[in-house]
Amino acid sequence: MTTETLMRQVKAVSAAVNLADTETKNRALHGMAAALLAETENILAANAEDCRAAEGVLSPVMMDRLLLTEARISAMAAGVREVAALPDPVGRELESHVHPKGFLIRKVASPLGVVAIIYESRPNVTADAAALAVKSGNACILRCGKEAHRSAAAITNALRQGLTGAGLPAETVSLVEDTSRESANALMRGVGFIDLLIPRGGKGLISACVENARVPCIETGTGICHIYVDAAADVEKALTILENAKKSRPSVCNAAEVCLVHEALLPSFLPAMEARLTSGEHPVQLRADAKCLPYLKTAVPAGEQDFDTEFLDYVLAVGAVTDVAAAIHHIAAHSTHHSDAIVTEDPAAAAAFTAQVDSAAVYVNVSTRFTDGGEFGLGCEMGISTQKLHARGPMGLEALTTYRYIVTGSGQIR
Amino acid sequence: MTTETLMRQVKAVSAAVNLADTETKNRALHGMAAALLAETENILAANAEDCRAAEGVLSPVMMDRLLLTEARISAMAAGVREVAALPDPVGRELESHVHPKGFLIRKVASPLGVVAIIYESRPNVTADAAALAVKSGNACILRCGKEAHRSAAAITNALRQGLTGAGLPAETVSLVEDTSRESANALMRGVGFIDLLIPRGGKGLISACVENARVPCIETGTGICHIYVDAAADVEKALTILENAKKSRPSVCNAAEVCLVHEALLPSFLPAMEARLTSGEHPVQLRADAKCLPYLKTAVPAGEQDFDTEFLDYVLAVGAVTDVAAAIHHIAAHSTHHSDAIVTEDPAAAAAFTAQVDSAAVYVNVSTRFTDGGEFGLGCEMGISTQKLHARGPMGLEALTTYRYIVTGSGQIR
Repeated sequence: MTTETLMRQVKAVSAAVNLADTETKNRALHGMAAALLAETENILAANAEDCRAAEGVLSPVMMDRLLLTEARISAMAAGVREVAALPDPVGRELESHVHPKGFLIRKVASPLGVVAIIYESRPNVTADAAALAVKSGNACILRCGKEAHRSAAAITNALRQGLTGAGLPAETVSLVEDTSRESANALMRGVGFIDLLIPRGGKGLISACVENARVPCIETGTGICHIYVDAAADVEKALTILENAKKSRPSVCNAAEVCLVHEALLPSFLPAMEARLTSGEHPVQLRADAKCLPYLKTAVPAGEQDFDTEFLDYVLAVGAVTDVAAAIHHIAAHSTHHSDAIVTEDPAAAAAFTAQVDSAAVYVNVSTRFTDGGEFGLGCEMGISTQKLHARGPMGLEALTTYRYIVTGSGQIR
Repeated sequence: MTTETLMRQVKAVSAAVNLADTETKNRALHGMAAALLAETENILAANAEDCRAAEGVLSPVMMDRLLLTEARISAMAAGVREVAALPDPVGRELESHVHPKGFLIRKVASPLGVVAIIYESRPNVTADAAALAVKSGNACILRCGKEAHRSAAAITNALRQGLTGAGLPAETVSLVEDTSRESANALMRGVGFIDLLIPRGGKGLISACVENARVPCIETGTGICHIYVDAAADVEKALTILENAKKSRPSVCNAAEVCLVHEALLPSFLPAMEARLTSGEHPVQLRADAKCLPYLKTAVPAGEQDFDTEFLDYVLAVGAVTDVAAAIHHIAAHSTHHSDAIVTEDPAAAAAFTAQVDSAAVYVNVSTRFTDGGEFGLGCEMGISTQKLHARGPMGLEALTTYRYIVTGSGQIR
């Protein structure tokens, strides 16, 4: 089936899930979770084929992302049940007032309609994204990378059993067959069929979508996150936060990539930082500017691109700044506006930083690793928006809704 | 000055208004209003030149839009003062909670940064848009049509006196010098300089922006609005609403362009409707489908495009539908999803219509003419969004803001 035909099909059935009540959607979600468990063997078999085909092609990290196990399928099912337990974001009355002429104006949350998600080699995104779409009353079109396509097809097959069991059309959750560039392009140009396109994956995919999409698109995920260690920092806090932000999971978008250090602190802080970050199983490679280099034994000189690179690895760019204003200025020029932190005990420095750093999440004395839907209390996450319109930071169910004004009266005219 | 240089200048000074407190912004707005009045003579002189140059080029309606008078300048100043009186949308705490690990997560409304507005021949948009931008903490770049450029420059000159009087940079409100297509294109491609682009004007301008913009853009204004007269309609209400929606101001986007009539009502309703709409100084031309034509004396057969045209004139397309479901179906296919209404005394028909019509404003027994920021209680309006992301329907000050998560703790790590 062509991607155009698929988009047409999904649009044609989308009204069913758009209008479904909370009970129907939750019944579908519980059915989807149950079917994932019931289909475990088939999903594992499909995944084994994907893994065989990817051997020698994907890096070990990517192979691990691709691999499914019984435990991971159980976790997927549990994730779908958690989404069922969240409050329904659709139908909420956001505002309401009576117009002076006596009619009622209500602002009511509504589904977007059809949401498309382009993702890469993590098959579990299939279930996550579908669950969030269904709960928020949206049909969804999933387009995964070719490495994970057999796994995603088996998962979609299970999810559809849950949908039809609750009386919703199977096409409510649809996987694009074609895994070539063509299908991604078709989704980007699906004006009239796609209400929101969310790219989840590497920088190349995301910028291709943002550049080329003719449908509304949300930029997600790229995180060049900064930790600024102020002159008034508690050094022990700074070391702990930096170690956590850099080393706890370097492959994720809320990991730190750049450490800016106040000049006054260079001689005392940098050696302690080097000791902390370069010890253990995964020593961090430090790439330092000219002012920092003399205080670091293992560092290499930072290249031109090192303050503008999302390493997603045990690598950290280290630079000196003259004061909090210079740190703010550097962040404005180099951050992807995802998550940036200051470590300081000085309330004035913290206030300047939080007022002026224009990022989705701005931290004072807390690790950037907390930028996450679950940690922020959203209960789930469809990605982390690094743009300013519609949704910023972790996107939960609300980010998958819009609103309508519903006006009811008795013949009023203007 | 090239548009690129201008964008760079505005971005460079935008932090001042982004960070300005409520008092400073309001002082600037009152200064802007006072300067508009003080500069009345200069503004009228510039406008007279614009009008002379446009004579014979613009239609009488457009000439009226271009023309400024002392009263219109006073109204502009009053509008700026009204914006000053509105609550500050920036800095509001939208949500806040304490994470289990003891740090505070606050979701705080923030300015977008730099907003660009492309508009056509109404010089008063200069002051309206600038006032809304300043109040919401945004710098703004204004690009008006060439017919109104002298007027807009004189107005901008006055507004800047108000800004500098309050200690804000004059460049906070900047008018693009170049009125060729090039400057509009430069704004559409101003990635890194423009946080939101709002086109205000005709369909051609809006679709050029939506098609070509590389910066976030909000689609505004095109309104193919429907009035569906149900079998259970109170005929007198239907006539009153239809007359108001079509004839009170046909040139605006919330005016009705299409009337759908339940088949059962054709013989009784259509002649009464024709009598009502074709009387008076501005008779409405009716363009009817085959089922409606026999009941209408003055109607012409509707052409292929008549159910997909924003007439903005004393013209109405009239069509028959078999029931409320058919009306909903027709609206889904032909509406611009701006404002659509049902006239009915049947609660089931009203419920089906409000649940299933996916437009910014959905009306039951009320004229579509109320879709307006002032009428909806926003106090002002930057345009009416017909898209689903970020802002839908009338856009007030909130639509010019985004939010940030500000997280403060004492060394917490994940």
